[in-house]
Amino acid sequence: MLVMTKTKLPPVILASGSPRRRELMGGLGIPFTVTTPGVDEAAIPVEGLSPGEIVKKLSLHKAQAIASANPDALVIGSDTIVVMADELGPEEVMGKPVDRQDAARMLNRLQDNEHRVYSGITVMGPNASGQPETRSDFLCTRVWMRPMTTDEIETYIDTGEPMDKAGAYAIQGQGSLNIERIEGCYFNVVGMSMYLLNRLIRELGYSLQVVPQGGNA
Amino acid sequence: MLVMTKTKLPPVILASGSPRRRELMGGLGIPFTVTTPGVDEAAIPVEGLSPGEIVKKLSLHKAQAIASANPDALVIGSDTIVVMADELGPEEVMGKPVDRQDAARMLNRLQDNEHRVYSGITVMGPNASGQPETRSDFLCTRVWMRPMTTDEIETYIDTGEPMDKAGAYAIQGQGSLNIERIEGCYFNVVGMSMYLLNRLIRELGYSLQVVPQGGNA
Repeated sequence: MLVMTKTKLPPVILASGSPRRRELMGGLGIPFTVTTPGVDEAAIPVEGLSPGEIVKKLSLHKAQAIASANPDALVIGSDTIVVMADELGPEEVMGKPVDRQDAARMLNRLQDNEHRVYSGITVMGPNASGQPETRSDFLCTRVWMRPMTTDEIETYIDTGEPMDKAGAYAIQGQGSLNIERIEGCYFNVVGMSMYLLNRLIRELGYSLQVVPQGGNA
Repeated sequence: MLVMTKTKLPPVILASGSPRRRELMGGLGIPFTVTTPGVDEAAIPVEGLSPGEIVKKLSLHKAQAIASANPDALVIGSDTIVVMADELGPEEVMGKPVDRQDAARMLNRLQDNEHRVYSGITVMGPNASGQPETRSDFLCTRVWMRPMTTDEIETYIDTGEPMDKAGAYAIQGQGSLNIERIEGCYFNVVGMSMYLLNRLIRELGYSLQVVPQGGNA
């Protein structure tokens, strides 16, 4: 049972298979369901787009894939990429590693260096006036990873944490030991900025701020 | 069952009653116990100390309170304060709010503004050579909270989240909707920097990097 501070939220659907995004949404205390969009990301053309435009476009495709069959729901799509750009090599957009060697290669490039994490969010559905509306935006967070030895990288890969994550690391869990500092939104690095999500949903006339019944604890 | 990458860790004791710090430590996958130190923080003189010196001193007192009876353990003490400094009023060090009105006053000052969060950590116990050793340090993280209306602040206080937290807010949970960006370590704002903890424990000759048995998932 929840008391909404503004107009009642429509049913919320998170269009993402990511356990991290599910956990982030769960921390808000609002009801939502999860549907994994069957989007073939490799088939979506992104040539010539900036990193921010790429994650916006992919988040839009994910939201659209679910929203078409759920016109009465507020559908949330999201996408995250890691971008490495330094003087030691060409700019590289890092998705999830394909294997252990790929993870080691990514971590070796990221360690002792700065990189950027881009996460895009699309919110699609009826606004507070009942009209269909779509909002997309992205945030960029700068991240500094501490110097890591080859042994430390191998041990980190052994934890299993890197394999399903863009850039082959998590900023939470064991990975928290390796991230020295960030500039920007932390949850943008985890996979979805709660601040940006709230901003987009407010633009549609709703609020994610809720008081659990029996709150004021 | 754990495989340590370096010298085996002694028993680890977290000297803190904070559920957030317990959760952070739990995310690492290392065994530890929790003992709340009976330290009367108000009785520890901190006049004339900088914010960083204050949280170092308080973390040291908390670690000492537990370490004296546990000489074979690695004891971790930690302390966090929020410091507000702008041109609109005198510098204010914010601990936990004493009541609802105090929480509203703090949040009203923090919203639409920048503040700083200081967390100190002390690690105390036998180093990898078996000699007693103590390491203390702190980190500072800059935090920007979005503009919040009086209604939004009241609703946020209704969630119960602010009352047991320095500065009357959490950066995780419902509070994540209100934090626009940070500069520094995120976990330093939650209550204990995992990066700094690992650095101090490495200085004693150990590592917190562990591979769960059956890892490499």
